[in-house]
Amino acid sequence: LNPPIVPESLEGWSVLHLMYRVDWTRMREVPHKECKRIANEVVTTLAVEDPADGATAYVQVLGHKGDLMLVIFRKTFDDLGRAELAFSQTALHALLIPTTSYVSIVELGMYDMTGKIHRQLAELGERPDLPTYRAAMAAEMEKQRQRVSGRLFGPVPKSRYVCFYPMNKRRGEVHNWYTETFERRAEMMSEHGKIGREYAGKVIQIISGSIGYDDWEWGVDLFADDPITFKKLIFEMRFDEASSKFAEFGPFYVGLQFPPEDLEKYLSATLGQP
Amino acid sequence: LNPPIVPESLEGWSVLHLMYRVDWTRMREVPHKECKRIANEVVTTLAVEDPADGATAYVQVLGHKGDLMLVIFRKTFDDLGRAELAFSQTALHALLIPTTSYVSIVELGMYDMTGKIHRQLAELGERPDLPTYRAAMAAEMEKQRQRVSGRLFGPVPKSRYVCFYPMNKRRGEVHNWYTETFERRAEMMSEHGKIGREYAGKVIQIISGSIGYDDWEWGVDLFADDPITFKKLIFEMRFDEASSKFAEFGPFYVGLQFPPEDLEKYLSATLGQP
Amino acid sequence: LNPPIVPESLEGWSVLHLMYRVDWTRMREVPHKECKRIANEVVTTLAVEDPADGATAYVQVLGHKGDLMLVIFRKTFDDLGRAELAFSQTALHALLIPTTSYVSIVELGMYDMTGKIHRQLAELGERPDLPTYRAAMAAEMEKQRQRVSGRLFGPVPKSRYVCFYPMNKRRGEVHNWYTETFERRAEMMSEHGKIGREYAGKVIQIISGSIGYDDWEWGVDLFADDPITFKKLIFEMRFDEASSKFAEFGPFYVGLQFPPEDLEKYLSATLGQP
Amino acid sequence: LNPPIVPESLEGWSVLHLMYRVDWTRMREVPHKECKRIANEVVTTLAVEDPADGATAYVQVLGHKGDLMLVIFRKTFDDLGRAELAFSQTALHALLIPTTSYVSIVELGMYDMTGKIHRQLAELGERPDLPTYRAAMAAEMEKQRQRVSGRLFGPVPKSRYVCFYPMNKRRGEVHNWYTETFERRAEMMSEHGKIGREYAGKVIQIISGSIGYDDWEWGVDLFADDPITFKKLIFEMRFDEASSKFAEFGPFYVGLQFPPEDLEKYLSATLGQP
Amino acid sequence: LNPPIVPESLEGWSVLHLMYRVDWTRMREVPHKECKRIANEVVTTLAVEDPADGATAYVQVLGHKGDLMLVIFRKTFDDLGRAELAFSQTALHALLIPTTSYVSIVELGMYDMTGKIHRQLAELGERPDLPTYRAAMAAEMEKQRQRVSGRLFGPVPKSRYVCFYPMNKRRGEVHNWYTETFERRAEMMSEHGKIGREYAGKVIQIISGSIGYDDWEWGVDLFADDPITFKKLIFEMRFDEASSKFAEFGPFYVGLQFPPEDLEKYLSATLGQP
Repeated sequence: LNPPIVPESLEGWSVLHLMYRVDWTRMREVPHKECKRIANEVVTTLAVEDPADGATAYVQVLGHKGDLMLVIFRKTFDDLGRAELAFSQTALHALLIPTTSYVSIVELGMYDMTGKIHRQLAELGERPDLPTYRAAMAAEMEKQRQRVSGRLFGPVPKSRYVCFYPMNKRRGEVHNWYTETFERRAEMMSEHGKIGREYAGKVIQIISGSIGYDDWEWGVDLFADDPITFKKLIFEMRFDEASSKFAEFGPFYVGLQFPPEDLEKYLSATLGQP
Repeated sequence: LNPPIVPESLEGWSVLHLMYRVDWTRMREVPHKECKRIANEVVTTLAVEDPADGATAYVQVLGHKGDLMLVIFRKTFDDLGRAELAFSQTALHALLIPTTSYVSIVELGMYDMTGKIHRQLAELGERPDLPTYRAAMAAEMEKQRQRVSGRLFGPVPKSRYVCFYPMNKRRGEVHNWYTETFERRAEMMSEHGKIGREYAGKVIQIISGSIGYDDWEWGVDLFADDPITFKKLIFEMRFDEASSKFAEFGPFYVGLQFPPEDLEKYLSATLGQP
Repeated sequence: LNPPIVPESLEGWSVLHLMYRVDWTRMREVPHKECKRIANEVVTTLAVEDPADGATAYVQVLGHKGDLMLVIFRKTFDDLGRAELAFSQTALHALLIPTTSYVSIVELGMYDMTGKIHRQLAELGERPDLPTYRAAMAAEMEKQRQRVSGRLFGPVPKSRYVCFYPMNKRRGEVHNWYTETFERRAEMMSEHGKIGREYAGKVIQIISGSIGYDDWEWGVDLFADDPITFKKLIFEMRFDEASSKFAEFGPFYVGLQFPPEDLEKYLSATLGQP
Repeated sequence: LNPPIVPESLEGWSVLHLMYRVDWTRMREVPHKECKRIANEVVTTLAVEDPADGATAYVQVLGHKGDLMLVIFRKTFDDLGRAELAFSQTALHALLIPTTSYVSIVELGMYDMTGKIHRQLAELGERPDLPTYRAAMAAEMEKQRQRVSGRLFGPVPKSRYVCFYPMNKRRGEVHNWYTETFERRAEMMSEHGKIGREYAGKVIQIISGSIGYDDWEWGVDLFADDPITFKKLIFEMRFDEASSKFAEFGPFYVGLQFPPEDLEKYLSATLGQP
Repeated sequence: LNPPIVPESLEGWSVLHLMYRVDWTRMREVPHKECKRIANEVVTTLAVEDPADGATAYVQVLGHKGDLMLVIFRKTFDDLGRAELAFSQTALHALLIPTTSYVSIVELGMYDMTGKIHRQLAELGERPDLPTYRAAMAAEMEKQRQRVSGRLFGPVPKSRYVCFYPMNKRRGEVHNWYTETFERRAEMMSEHGKIGREYAGKVIQIISGSIGYDDWEWGVDLFADDPITFKKLIFEMRFDEASSKFAEFGPFYVGLQFPPEDLEKYLSATLGQP
C-alpha cells in the first residue's frame, strides 16, 4: 500500500487571537484624559513600524464571549510572545478579563499544487518516500512561496465585520477525512474553493493552521462589509461535501473592526456615536 | 452530479440575547430612589424612538442560568454594538454578572419558494450555476422581501412567557441534514411547519439564523400566554422527522416577559406582587 | 404514512430546583440569634399558607455540587418567579453561591390512556388529524385530570432521602426513541413501570417535564427511607429496554431532606447532632 | 422473552470523596501554633472513635485538580452529612476551595453468586419474577453479607499511593453492556477479575457504587506501594473485553496518602522533608 | 481464545506539567529587586543539585490557557509531591492562578521488543499466562531498561519551542485500538514511528504514560527549533492509520522555553527584548 499523500502547505504570519471582557465598572471610573493615555499605550505597544513585521486588528465582539478581540499578526512565535508579554504590562490589561484565545500560523493549503507536482514526479519515477522526491517537492514549494508571499504575509483587511471560528476535518468512525484518498480530498477542496470564489469581492478569508498549537486544526477569519455575507457563505458551504460530511466547527465570534486610533472611543464608549 | 440546492432565506432584525445574573446582595442595598433612576437609565438607553429601528424585550428568567434576559432587536450589527456598549455604561450593568448571550439575525427560511422558483427556472433551462439563474432568483427574493417585511422587522410579541433555545440541523455520521436532497428537506420542513400551524394563535415563533455569528445554526424564540404550550409544542414536534432525526438542541431558557416600565419593580423585587 | 402518535400528558405543579453552596466562612460568623432570624426569614418567604398553593422542600446535598437544595412547587411559573425573586431578597441569599437549578412542570405521562383512547377513536373512524379526534381526546384527558389531580398537585413526600436527576430519551443515530412506533414505546414504558411498581412503598417518584424549560427532557425526583433503594431501583431499571437503549442521564444529586423548621439547625451546623 | 438477570450486590461503607485546593497564600500566613490547632481540629472532627463507625483518609493530590483529597467512610449517608457539615465549620475549611467530590457506597458485585443461585433456583422451578425467588435470593445474599462483612466495612488500606476514578459501563449504540446477556456479562467480569487477581498483594481495590448518587455508575479507589502498578494494572485491563468495549472512564486523581497526624506537616509544607 | 498481548513498557521520570496565569496587575507592582528575589526563590526551590535527580523546564505559553508552564521531572511521585508543595510556598505562587496540569511518567513503549520476545518465548513453548513466561519477559525488560536508561531519565531538551498535548488511543464503537490484534497494533506503531524518524534532528519527543494518573492515556512533549515543525509533523502523522483512525487528542499547549536564569526577565516582562 502506498502511504497517503499529504498536501503541502506554505506558512505566513504567526497569529494570536486574544479575547477579553472589559471590566466596564472600573473602566467607567477612568477619567477621560487617562482613558486616552491608556488607549495610546496599547496602540503603541502593539503597533509595528514596518508592515512587513506584522499588524494588529481591533474588534468589538458582540455578546458575552468577549468585548474586545485583538488579532496580532507577527513574523514569529517569539514576536507573538513579546507582544503578549508587552500587552500584559499595559494599564488596559489590568482592566480586562481574558476569556479565550487562539494560536495559529497563516497557511496556504496547496492541494492542487501538491497533486500536480506529485503527478509530474511520479512520471519521472520519483516516489514520496525517496529523498529526491522530497527535494524536488521542496524546491517547487519554495518557488510557490515567492509567488504567494503577498498572501502569506499580507495586510489585515480593513473590512468592518470580522468573523472568526476554528474548525477540524472530521475523523469520525464512518466519515474520516484523513483516510480518504488524496484525489477525493483534492476534489472536495476544489469544490469547496469554488463556492468561496463566488463570494470573491464580498468576503476576504484568512486561513491559519493550528495543529500542534491549539485545540482545533485550523482557524478561519472572514472579513466583509455586510455581516449577512458570513451567514450566506458558510450556509452555502455547509452543503458541499467537504463541510457537510467532514467539517467540525468550534465556537464562532463575530464583531465590528475599528481602526487602532478608535480604541480610545471604544474604551470611553463613544465609538459609533454620531 | 448536480450541486445541492441551497434554500434561500430573507433576513430581518439583528438580534442580541443577553443573559445576566443580578448581584442581589448589592442591588438590595440600592435606595429606592436610586433604583428608579437605575431602571430609567437602562430603559432609556435601550429604547428606540421609532419602532422601525428596533425594540428591546425584558425577561425574568427562571433558575440559575440568569435572572434577567434582554432581547435587543436592531437594524444592523452596528446598532447592536452601540446598544451593547451603551448598556455596559449604565449603573445597572455594574450590578450584573454576564452568564451567556446569543447573536443572530431574524431569518425566514424559504424552502417552498426556493423549490417553486427552482422548478420554474429549470423549465426555462436555467441552472443554479448560471448567472441568469442567480439574478432571477435574487429578483424573486426581492419581491418576497417586500411581501414579508412585516415579519422580518416585526414588533416583539407582548406574550407573558418567553422560551429561547438555539439548535442545529444534525450532521451525524448516519443522519445528515446537509446531505439529504432538497426535496426531502423541503418535505420535512413542510411537515414540521404543519405542526407549528396547529399552534397558531397560541404560540408566536421568531426564528433567527446564527451561522457565522454564534455556536449553533439557529435561535428560536417562542412567545405564549401559557408556558405549558411550549412543552406540548416542542414535544409534539420532537416526533416529526425534521426533529427526531435531524435536530440538535442547545440550552433552553424560559422566563416571564415584563414591559420596560416594570424594570424598576423587578429590580426592587416588587414585580408581580399584589 | 400516518403521523406518529404523541402520548398525552397531564400537568401539575410548576417546579424549581435551586442548588447552592453555602459560604460557610461567613455563615460561621453570623451570631446565633441572627442565624435564627435568617432561617425564619427564608422559611416564611418560601412558605405557602394553603397546601393547595404549593410547597417547599429543603435538602442537605452531599458533595460539592451544592450544600442546600430547595425544591419549590407552585401552581404557575409566575408563582415560581415571585418565589425566586423573593428568595433573592433574603439575608440568606447573600450567603449562598448558586451552583445550578432545574425548571420543570410535574407531568403524568399517559401512554396507556393515549393508546386506549386512540384505539377507541380509531374504531369510531376518528383520525388524529381530525378536529373531532382532538376534541374527544381532550375531553377524555380532562376526565383523567380530575381523577389524578391528587398526583398532579400532591404534597411533597416527607422521606429522609432525596435523589434528583434529569434525563432524556435518546435520539441516537441507531437507537432513536422518537422514531419508534407508539406501540413499541408504550410497551417499553409499561415494562419500565412494572419495575417501578415492585418498589412501591419503598420509593416515591415525581416526574416533571422540562422540554422547553431546561436542558433535559424530564426531571426525576425520588424519595426513600433508605438511600440504597435509589441505587437498586435505578440499577435494575438500567437493564430494561427503555433505559438500556433509550435513556440518557444528566447529573445526579443526592441529599438528606429536613423539615423547614430545621433550617436554623442546618445553618448553625447542629443539624443531626444528638 | 425473559427479563434480564440483574446481578445482586452487597453494600458497605457510605463514601464521600472531597477534593479541595488549598489557599496557600493565606495558609502561609498562619502562624505555626495556629496551624497545629487547625490541623488538630480537622483530625478530631473527622475521626471516629470506633473503627466500626468509619474512617477518614488524607491524600495529597498531584496537579491542579486538588491539593487535598479527603476520603470519608461512614455507616450511613446521615453520618456523611454530619461529617461534611462538621468539616465545613472548621478553620481549615475557610482556607480551602472545593474543586470536586464523589458520593458512593462500597459495593461488592456478586455476578458469580447471582449466577449460581439463579441456576439453583431455576432448577427448583423458581423464576425471577416470583416472590419466592426474590425471598430465596435475599436469604442467600444475607448469608453472603455475613461472610464478606469484613470487606464491606473494612479498614482503609495504609498504602502510600492512592488512585481514584469514576467509571461507567457503556450503553453505546453498538456496544451496550446492559443489553448483553447475563452469561456474557458474568464471563467478562470473571475475565476482568482474573487480571485483578494477578496484582493481588500489589494493589488493593475498593469499588463503590454511585448509581443514583453521582454522575458515574461506580467509583474505583486503588491503593499501592508503587504508583507504576496503577498504570500497569489499568493498561493491562484496558485490553480485556469488559474494559476495551464496555468501560467509560471519568477523571483520574492520583496522590500520596499520609496519616492524619501528618496533616499539620502538610499544611505547614514540611511533609516529606528530611 | 488467547488473551490479547499487552505491549511492555519501561518507565522513567515522574513528570508534572503545571500551567498558570500570572496576575500581571499585581506582578507589575512588585519592585525590581523583589522581582529578582521572587525569581531566585522559585529557581532555587525547583532546582535539583544532581541532574540524575530531575530537572525543571520553564515555558512562556502563548494564549489564555496559561502564561507560565513548569515541567517538573523527578525520580518519584514523592519527589513531585515535595516539589509541588515547596513551590506552593514561594512568593511567586501567590501571584499565579492555576489553570491546568498534567501528571504522568516517562514511558518507552516496547511494541517491537514485546513482539520479538513473545515470538521467541512462544517457540520455547511459553505462554503469557505461565509464570515462566512472565519471568523471562521481566528479565528481558530489565536488560532493555539498562540499555535505554539514558532515554528514561534523560535531560530536558534545550530547544526554544515546546508543544505539549495529551492523547488517547480510541475505543470507539467501530474503531477500537484495544480490540485490534497485537500484530496490527505493532504494525501501525511501527509505521507511526517511521514518520517520527523522518523528523529526527528536528524534533525531540518525550512520551509519558498517564493511565491511572490523569484524564488521558499519554502525554506528548515535543521540542523543536522551529515551531512550524510541530505542525508539519503532527499533520503528516494525522494521515497514518495509528492517528487517523485511532488517535484522540486533548488540548494543545505551545510556548517558548527559556532557561531558569531568565525567569526574572520573564516576570519583569523584559524577556526577549533587545
